Amino acid sequence: MTAAKAHNIQPVLAELAALLGARFSTAQAVRDHHGKDESWAVPAPPDAVAFPHSTEEVAEIVKICAAHEFPVIAFGAGTSLEGHVIPSRGGLCVDLTQMDKVLRLSTADLDCTVQPGITRKALNEYLRDTGLFFPIDPGANATIGGMAATRASGTNAVRYGTMRDCVLSLTVVLADGRIIRTARRARKSAAGYDLTRLFVGSEGTLGIITEIALRLWGIPEAISAATCTFETLEGAVDCVIQTIQSGVPVARIELADDKQIDAINRYSKLDLPVQTMLFLEFHGTAASVKEQAEAVQALAAEHGGGRFEWTTKPEERTRLWQARHDAAYAAYAMRPGCKGLATDVCVPISNLAACIAETKRDIDEHGLYAPIVGHVGDGNFHTVLVIDRNNPEEVEAGDAFSERMALRALRYDGTCTGEHGIGSGKMKYLLAEHGEAVAVMRQIKNALDPLNIMNPGKILMP
Amino acid sequence: MTAAKAHNIQPVLAELAALLGARFSTAQAVRDHHGKDESWAVPAPPDAVAFPHSTEEVAEIVKICAAHEFPVIAFGAGTSLEGHVIPSRGGLCVDLTQMDKVLRLSTADLDCTVQPGITRKALNEYLRDTGLFFPIDPGANATIGGMAATRASGTNAVRYGTMRDCVLSLTVVLADGRIIRTARRARKSAAGYDLTRLFVGSEGTLGIITEIALRLWGIPEAISAATCTFETLEGAVDCVIQTIQSGVPVARIELADDKQIDAINRYSKLDLPVQTMLFLEFHGTAASVKEQAEAVQALAAEHGGGRFEWTTKPEERTRLWQARHDAAYAAYAMRPGCKGLATDVCVPISNLAACIAETKRDIDEHGLYAPIVGHVGDGNFHTVLVIDRNNPEEVEAGDAFSERMALRALRYDGTCTGEHGIGSGKMKYLLAEHGEAVAVMRQIKNALDPLNIMNPGKILMP
Repeated sequence: MTAAKAHNIQPVLAELAALLGARFSTAQAVRDHHGKDESWAVPAPPDAVAFPHSTEEVAEIVKICAAHEFPVIAFGAGTSLEGHVIPSRGGLCVDLTQMDKVLRLSTADLDCTVQPGITRKALNEYLRDTGLFFPIDPGANATIGGMAATRASGTNAVRYGTMRDCVLSLTVVLADGRIIRTARRARKSAAGYDLTRLFVGSEGTLGIITEIALRLWGIPEAISAATCTFETLEGAVDCVIQTIQSGVPVARIELADDKQIDAINRYSKLDLPVQTMLFLEFHGTAASVKEQAEAVQALAAEHGGGRFEWTTKPEERTRLWQARHDAAYAAYAMRPGCKGLATDVCVPISNLAACIAETKRDIDEHGLYAPIVGHVGDGNFHTVLVIDRNNPEEVEAGDAFSERMALRALRYDGTCTGEHGIGSGKMKYLLAEHGEAVAVMRQIKNALDPLNIMNPGKILMP
Repeated sequence: MTAAKAHNIQPVLAELAALLGARFSTAQAVRDHHGKDESWAVPAPPDAVAFPHSTEEVAEIVKICAAHEFPVIAFGAGTSLEGHVIPSRGGLCVDLTQMDKVLRLSTADLDCTVQPGITRKALNEYLRDTGLFFPIDPGANATIGGMAATRASGTNAVRYGTMRDCVLSLTVVLADGRIIRTARRARKSAAGYDLTRLFVGSEGTLGIITEIALRLWGIPEAISAATCTFETLEGAVDCVIQTIQSGVPVARIELADDKQIDAINRYSKLDLPVQTMLFLEFHGTAASVKEQAEAVQALAAEHGGGRFEWTTKPEERTRLWQARHDAAYAAYAMRPGCKGLATDVCVPISNLAACIAETKRDIDEHGLYAPIVGHVGDGNFHTVLVIDRNNPEEVEAGDAFSERMALRALRYDGTCTGEHGIGSGKMKYLLAEHGEAVAVMRQIKNALDPLNIMNPGKILMP
């Protein structure tokens, strides 16, 4: 069933068609394209797809849908990993990819305002000649709107924060079509409730984000990248802890286990030593990046670190980080025809070594193929379970593993999702993670979306 | 009138007395002490004061008050600047200063959990031998609970962020006595709505914060402080913009105008040149702080900077920063018997020079005494208007100036409060700043506190 309710959806579709003309579609191929993401959640097409061009148009769309109690699901690049954009109850998919402009750029203020449909790579392409960059980099080339909606982060979060930290202000269309701006453009404010942070990570369940003011950073004078192998996982993690503790302002500090390195080597045609490895990046002045690299090299040596190689050559850095970014795709490629199930736990860093070690034992005991890769400076790591979707036993084993991962993270006072979000896939863990606080989330949802039309069936269990 | 409603408040007071015994008071002196803050809002005593010892006790207190629809006002050090803690409708003041313990400290995770009543100085005293520190430093020695509730910041925010960024998780007693924990202790999470950020800055209007998990930082290997005079205000601000833009990871970059320097010299017995001046601090390795200071010195020279003096000697740094921290008290001391009215605007940094210049003209045109001091790296600055509260003309002129400051900041796409909060003093500007978004704040308030007992009459106009 795709229709939101059993009632006749023709009137709402007719009104939307009248409003949007050619930028409205009920074609099966268009609907199918908007009924899936990169998760292994079961696809389900929306009843129709709209392609708005402005905030005001989104507001008109939402007003029509509200009048008919018709679900509204915002859609960007479709790269979410927990079924966020899959319209579990049908409704209208609002595809924001045609709203992809940079509306404003201030090099003096190190900020810009963009529409939600621009991708992170397109934004950085736009910024290239300004000397500025936007650091948040989930694996996929996601849209900025989707990244804000899911509170995304990536490899740079240890230095630059997550979307929580990098969004200055949002324009949001609410469930009744009202338009709000959540904050002025000042760097900080103590003026009332922090609505910006409330909508960042709300996954389209409280409103549709139609403009985003973002912090930007100056491209560092010098950038160097390094890799270092480790005899043991514990040694690598201890090196990370020491690096963070000693205040080295590392820009990236990523871990990959031997299985992940093997997959990367095959996929990206590299010959990295097949051992636990840290990937690092340093930003600063020429002197500072050298000093940082030397400091980490010394710490690595104390913790069983082996080959420490570093480079400031852009092409070598790019190749290394592209390989790191392709880690998930590299894992998938190890089992052609299979799909990935990415877990995404984040724990206090003091619990990280124990949590990863327990995870590796779990993987071995259950005979799973699941390389480990992580943003370990934040205590965040992923296992990329590669599974044959057509084999019910594998699917069951994958679900069971995913649940063990989530519950293990909670035992270590961590979260079931560091950066992928709840979507539909992790709703079942929310109560275990937050307890009574989920009731507060529900009160807020009910207050702002009493008809439950904004991406229903996500974050909060129906 | 102090009673919340015309109805008899003896039953609720009797229940509270039975619960708390000697830690409950209706003595006039105790009530008077809890009826004022450091603002020039008119004092008003609560009907009674409670001194709880635990989260559970706060929950019991709130349950009793909820049953009687009796207002509940959280109280820390009483240093707020916008009347936050003044019980405008009477009710119970919940003084949290006896809940002042550090509950947990993790040097590996660089975090701790504290009770709300501990002050920022007491926390740093506690941390002294651990090699860690907590950077957020409003002028007053406020409590951590009060700082979280008002989204406070201070001189280090340009490097370390505000309370928004430094709070990992909160335990909160809600308006009906339920207890929630807003997040796990992981550094980042994408698990549901960001309740932590919703309660940070909610000024006691959504619940009472009873535990705070905080990020900490390692004390830098080297710290150096510098001062530099400038021929013009514009030159100083341009130097700040260039410093931020070029990515110098400055820890503090503060501006004081000639009048403020004069007041500081008299109050702190210093002989700083009476000119616009930047106060800077650099954190890092020995080599890095030297490099940072040199970079800023070069930028200062390009913008009319004069004497650039820097030091790594702890006693000199401390004396300099104590003087900076006492800036407001120094201004008050210029007119004994008068009270200060601190404005607190924050604008995009590209608008900062224009906004400050317009402010100085305003001060001159109206013949006011109002030194300027600011956290200019964030675009935040204060004027400290010193006024004779017994002179109605001065009071009227002060109110009018404060309003011009707020509206000027909004014209420059800034906020009427960078770090002091709304309280009762700035409620009238909230709608001008946020427009329709205020309605969303009100929906949230109504959903979480339907009886309007949590610090009523603050943030949102009745």
